[in-house]
Amino acid sequence: MVRIPDDVRSVLESGRLAHLVTLNADGSPQVTIVWVGLEGDEIVAGHLGMFHKLKNVQRDSRVALSIELDTLNPIGLTEYLVVNGRARVQEGGGAELLQRLAYVYISPGVKFPPMDKPPSGYVLRITPERFGGVGSWANPIG
Amino acid sequence: MVRIPDDVRSVLESGRLAHLVTLNADGSPQVTIVWVGLEGDEIVAGHLGMFHKLKNVQRDSRVALSIELDTLNPIGLTEYLVVNGRARVQEGGGAELLQRLAYVYISPGVKFPPMDKPPSGYVLRITPERFGGVGSWANPIG
Repeated sequence: MVRIPDDVRSVLESGRLAHLVTLNADGSPQVTIVWVGLEGDEIVAGHLGMFHKLKNVQRDSRVALSIELDTLNPIGLTEYLVVNGRARVQEGGGAELLQRLAYVYISPGVKFPPMDKPPSGYVLRITPERFGGVGSWANPIG
Repeated sequence: MVRIPDDVRSVLESGRLAHLVTLNADGSPQVTIVWVGLEGDEIVAGHLGMFHKLKNVQRDSRVALSIELDTLNPIGLTEYLVVNGRARVQEGGGAELLQRLAYVYISPGVKFPPMDKPPSGYVLRITPERFGGVGSWANPIG
């Protein structure tokens, strides 16, 4: 497992949206935007249902995610983080994780999911393999 | 060829960054952030060199791109556009396109690329096949 550097951890915990790429059965890319958080050196995302992206991961674990920042690098390019890694689907825990992430992504104290008894859902757990994009965590070539 | 609806055209011409997904030789996803524009019903991006993403497209034309907005849909989710399509690489025209897009992405009147004689580069031309994400252009299920 790759340790997640501190500058990458900051981005992953900043409440910025992650563009998550999974692979469809025919190998084509599927993209959705998700909330993310950290548990140790895994990136986690919560889901209430067995959505298409989770089925994709169960068949092919290769994923990528990208997060856009509002800072510029020294030559004026927008900084962003790309993580390539392997993901797995954990049954249960999705609703609790969404509640924890909602405090970061919506506001402290918000109730989310906004229902009395949400299904327990699923947690997508991503083990990072490399970091790229534009930023202090990336090679100069990007 | 799919016609690009007006609401999608607005997003693609808004100066927001596009997260572009191409497929590596081993089928894994590669993500970079690019500037995009429209030429008729094609989405275009300019590049000065034969970068990894362009080589990927020459081998496998399947791409996806996603663009994050700062608007919320009626139930409070951030709106975003996802385009799935096929891309091809056109030789030449990259520098001119980057100059045109720089007026949108940086500022009117800026000189870009910031060099006297940039290489002519390449244009990535994406033919959209379907639109998704969260927004007026997407099915309710997203």
